[in-house]
Amino acid sequence: MKILRTGPPGEETAAALLPDGSAVDLTGVLDAHRPWSAADLDRAASAVRAGLPALDLTGRRVGAPLPRPGTIVCIGLNYRDHAAETGAQLPTEPVVFLKSSSTVVGPHDTLLIPRGSSKTDYEVELGVVLGARARYLESAEAALEVVAGFVVSHDVSEREFQLERGGQWDKGKSCETFNPLGPWFVTADEVADVGALGLRTWVNGELRQDGSTADLVFGVADVIRYLSWFTVLEPGDLVNTGTPAGVALGQPDPKPYLRPGDVVECEIDGLGRTRNVAAAA
Amino acid sequence: MKILRTGPPGEETAAALLPDGSAVDLTGVLDAHRPWSAADLDRAASAVRAGLPALDLTGRRVGAPLPRPGTIVCIGLNYRDHAAETGAQLPTEPVVFLKSSSTVVGPHDTLLIPRGSSKTDYEVELGVVLGARARYLESAEAALEVVAGFVVSHDVSEREFQLERGGQWDKGKSCETFNPLGPWFVTADEVADVGALGLRTWVNGELRQDGSTADLVFGVADVIRYLSWFTVLEPGDLVNTGTPAGVALGQPDPKPYLRPGDVVECEIDGLGRTRNVAAAA
Repeated sequence: MKILRTGPPGEETAAALLPDGSAVDLTGVLDAHRPWSAADLDRAASAVRAGLPALDLTGRRVGAPLPRPGTIVCIGLNYRDHAAETGAQLPTEPVVFLKSSSTVVGPHDTLLIPRGSSKTDYEVELGVVLGARARYLESAEAALEVVAGFVVSHDVSEREFQLERGGQWDKGKSCETFNPLGPWFVTADEVADVGALGLRTWVNGELRQDGSTADLVFGVADVIRYLSWFTVLEPGDLVNTGTPAGVALGQPDPKPYLRPGDVVECEIDGLGRTRNVAAAA
Repeated sequence: MKILRTGPPGEETAAALLPDGSAVDLTGVLDAHRPWSAADLDRAASAVRAGLPALDLTGRRVGAPLPRPGTIVCIGLNYRDHAAETGAQLPTEPVVFLKSSSTVVGPHDTLLIPRGSSKTDYEVELGVVLGARARYLESAEAALEVVAGFVVSHDVSEREFQLERGGQWDKGKSCETFNPLGPWFVTADEVADVGALGLRTWVNGELRQDGSTADLVFGVADVIRYLSWFTVLEPGDLVNTGTPAGVALGQPDPKPYLRPGDVVECEIDGLGRTRNVAAAA
């Protein structure tokens, strides 16, 4: 099942996208503003199979395809080629940081370049969405059982704030609009092999990132199992699993950081494509 | 006004604590599970003045005095003496990290020592609670206007996870039950000088931390103004402003990290005292 949320910011309703590209209305079936559990998603799937009213998406804004996550956890340096381009050593265990979930915006919303920023960067990432509680999971199999599905997640990053302003990366990760999501949330049953998905980013039509989840240092199941020993993940939480090579930070000078007017598109096989136009905050 | 939340975990209702120590019921006045804006708090204060039914707290669990924050932002190394004891240089601008808000528990709930932990540490902190949106604030005065009030916040930290397991501090900051809060949320009008509050921690009755917000490197208004240039803070968000000297990490070996059975009490002048007993997760 592919789910999206549509309507003005803060007033979105949920809808399911059918294989023929049409949509049906999940209003009354799935609360668009509370995190979804696996049971909520099963109920929605049953309702879709039983038949729901059609919803015409023409002219409607598409919002982030999830209710605001309780927590967004991010994994750093999790692709071999990205660790190399940033000059970092390959991690021996997952590098973990957090991103404020106030950053989540829709797949076509404006991406704001923060005031004072000269190093705003793009990062396409496979977003993993939890459908059940994860706490001290013992195995990769148990970790996959708590995964509800996947989403294209754009972990926008301000490199000066992240790396040159003292302290921890979080300072450059939680700026306003810094996590475009969507266009759809795709349930895990529709993703045949999460370990072999192509991920790509274009800026103004130029391909900048072109990776595959086959190059993840720590795969989805390992990441979720690992995290569950350091925190409690809950239904609706989002895990951004890292970005492949090609970010502006990794390029020769002058590095191609984002500027107002730039069009950034992020795509993952089977999960759709975000398209956000940058503007000054 | 002093507000608390009482009832079983996840089913708390809000109450106001009156000057004589009795409580009145805020059910129907203040939603105990959605973040509070300044307007919500003003409405609650009016209702308290107009008179509300008494609530007998005898035998009732006291929960965290706030709905779950959308975001918890923490400031690191923000007391001169704590920076010195950890061997860190004094920061030239605030060190910022995040803590998952899934960590919030009540002021008397069990504090869980994570599995595999040998370095669980205490940190009493002044918690600042937002009552309005903070975005690109221009002045300290504007920053104080978005502050709804204050709370004793215990920023429990696992030092091995934080400092020795690769990457960012967040890994040792977001473990289950790692943010006891309470017993009360105290509105800003009841705190005469937030820059002169004593903060103390006892472990098993032994005084370990004994500081004052007068020693903050970056005071409350500066911190909120600063953060608003890197992220958007929203009503109900919590900012943990840093801890004074005396944490276990700063002691000579063998450092007195927390063990199951330890009783940890954190207190701030006028804001009350938490008391959490440690147990194995």
